[in-house]
Amino acid sequence: MMSVTDPVENLQALIRCPSVTPEEGGALTALEAMLAPLGFAVTRMTASGDGTPDVENLYARLGADGPHLMFAGHTDVVPPGDAASWTHPPFAAEIADGMLYGRGAVDMKGGIACFVAALARFIGENGKPPASVSLLITGDEEGPGINGTDKLLHWAKARGERWDAALVGEPTNPDALGDMIKVGRRGSLTGRLTVIGIQGHVAYPHLADNPLRTMTGMLDALMGKPLDEGTDLFPPTNLEVTSVDTGNAATNVIPEKTTATFNIRFNDLWSEETLKAEILDRLGHAARTGGKDTTRFTVEWLGRVSPVFLTRDEQLAGSLSEAIAAVTGKTPQLSTTGGTSDARFIKDYCPVVEFGLVGQTMHKVDERVAVVDLEKLTEIYRHFIERWFALAAAC
Amino acid sequence: MMSVTDPVENLQALIRCPSVTPEEGGALTALEAMLAPLGFAVTRMTASGDGTPDVENLYARLGADGPHLMFAGHTDVVPPGDAASWTHPPFAAEIADGMLYGRGAVDMKGGIACFVAALARFIGENGKPPASVSLLITGDEEGPGINGTDKLLHWAKARGERWDAALVGEPTNPDALGDMIKVGRRGSLTGRLTVIGIQGHVAYPHLADNPLRTMTGMLDALMGKPLDEGTDLFPPTNLEVTSVDTGNAATNVIPEKTTATFNIRFNDLWSEETLKAEILDRLGHAARTGGKDTTRFTVEWLGRVSPVFLTRDEQLAGSLSEAIAAVTGKTPQLSTTGGTSDARFIKDYCPVVEFGLVGQTMHKVDERVAVVDLEKLTEIYRHFIERWFALAAAC
Ligand SMILES: [Zn+2]
Ligand SMILES: [Zn+2]
Repeated sequence: MMSVTDPVENLQALIRCPSVTPEEGGALTALEAMLAPLGFAVTRMTASGDGTPDVENLYARLGADGPHLMFAGHTDVVPPGDAASWTHPPFAAEIADGMLYGRGAVDMKGGIACFVAALARFIGENGKPPASVSLLITGDEEGPGINGTDKLLHWAKARGERWDAALVGEPTNPDALGDMIKVGRRGSLTGRLTVIGIQGHVAYPHLADNPLRTMTGMLDALMGKPLDEGTDLFPPTNLEVTSVDTGNAATNVIPEKTTATFNIRFNDLWSEETLKAEILDRLGHAARTGGKDTTRFTVEWLGRVSPVFLTRDEQLAGSLSEAIAAVTGKTPQLSTTGGTSDARFIKDYCPVVEFGLVGQTMHKVDERVAVVDLEKLTEIYRHFIERWFALAAAC
Repeated sequence: MMSVTDPVENLQALIRCPSVTPEEGGALTALEAMLAPLGFAVTRMTASGDGTPDVENLYARLGADGPHLMFAGHTDVVPPGDAASWTHPPFAAEIADGMLYGRGAVDMKGGIACFVAALARFIGENGKPPASVSLLITGDEEGPGINGTDKLLHWAKARGERWDAALVGEPTNPDALGDMIKVGRRGSLTGRLTVIGIQGHVAYPHLADNPLRTMTGMLDALMGKPLDEGTDLFPPTNLEVTSVDTGNAATNVIPEKTTATFNIRFNDLWSEETLKAEILDRLGHAARTGGKDTTRFTVEWLGRVSPVFLTRDEQLAGSLSEAIAAVTGKTPQLSTTGGTSDARFIKDYCPVVEFGLVGQTMHKVDERVAVVDLEKLTEIYRHFIERWFALAAAC
């Protein structure tokens, strides 16, 4: 059992499993081998369907009752790209100059390795925890996200699982360990605008209706005026047009139609409904002022909308902040910046916060973590577990 | 010889040759068979090279000296599309309800058929003309335009050919025969703008530079403010953006770059140089006010620039207007509207005007011409030939 108290050894074992989404790559089996000796009941769960690859997931619980803490994460990793570009091979887990190299080092096999080490240390000192702790680990966070955390949560809930709080081990720190806890995330809404005019010859523009004229005004309506100025806990809502595509190769022809795809990261001033209404209002106004009588447009909303969420749980965020301060001497910023994460699924089951390693090298060549950070994060997690259980037991 | 005085028979013979660019299809051979009995020296000239298909062209001259009139045109036609959509087969030249159906009926085998008939009638009445008349007929007007009129003119000039005036037989009338003579054409300039920013994740826009933000301002700079209000003889210069293409399929990624292609039809207020300078000035200003420090852009000018031109030849345009008035009772409008034509090449050799049939059905399914229009155009051309030779002989 004592062998898993070292986060470096845990992480090396996990990195050496090439678990590029959707391959399990041996990573969940390696994790199971760490958890079972600690007393965890480990269940492997394969999710399938919805036109995406089957994915293996893992759920492990220690303890049968009392307050229940969930640690959530993923063992899948993004592809290493050109392995020859790496200073150290992406699945070798080599250490050089105090840095451990490998795909997943910070995103987020490192977070899992530290949490397992923290639990092992806690159990070594205190014996079996006074309540329950679970690991909810998916193999589909970097992929479509269809057969991962979302289905694993459904499945566990159907088996009677309930949680009081969750910690996601994603890399949350921009520069140094202790910088930032994520206590919420902006929502994400993606739309595709199609503007339809009338095709014609460029020499006879009065017989045509160039959709790119109207589109220009619509793009300005979308991006020109900020949607809001942000709130106390959220940055401003931001819209980016990600692609405009007409596909007209004939330079003497006015095209019939063109599309534009855009993504909005929105804060708690908006719901899905109010935001869609605002976008349609802006586009409608731009079409009326900039289009012709013949101009039409449609908006298709793509994929699932990620709702905005904010976790207000003093016990959860407080325990984590205190643990971080105890180890690093820093007071972490409570932030809602950045992209979406699987916390958007967990927030429907229990309060959730996110804290892990420093994210600078994630998804890049030479992804790596400072060995000293692995030890510090393990201690932060250990302090956090102690505090959260102490507070939960006192309730 | 008398057989070619009927434009309907001439046109039927030409339509029945399926001369879709770059196929000769027998059309030039049929034309040669009409011209040789009238006394023309007919030369077939095949042009090749520049990466486009070889094209057969024809040059025919009657008379060796004196004022020299050129009739220019093309026997190639655009593809018929789905032949099943035609009321009458596209290469059958069937007549129904006073209309002659077929690909090329108005664009512009009809113009050639009428000019040959007009010449035959003139010769039948007056004998050999007092000076020279030539037909310069290409098989590459609807195609790339590389191995057609341009090379044929070079070739003929190298053989010592010189002309005093030219008539192009393209369909120039919007609604009814006699509406419009073309006495010039706007220039055409095509450019491709590429805006380069910095790729990034939509959740971290401050780390990226979205080229579509800058592009939006640039499109507005190109299309928002008119380039001019037009002149006495030319419509306003007009710019159309014909395609915007980013090709970014990842809706959570800000793209690195995007392109926009645009075409300008410009009047005699601009030269190629002043127009390019104005466009670069507008784009540069938009980039400075709407872009980031990291934003860059390039403009590539595509293909050949067609210069603007205007024919000021009273004898040429006057003879044609009088002939039109004599046959139709109308005073034609002298216009510079519409797209480019092969007149843009001829204008470097001699004054050139354009007059032919009604263009409404050109390039469409069921292209057709009123039989009565063929007779009228033949008489217009005959009157024109008489007048032009009379004036030329008087000089
Ligand atoms: Zn991750
Ligand atoms: Zn034509």
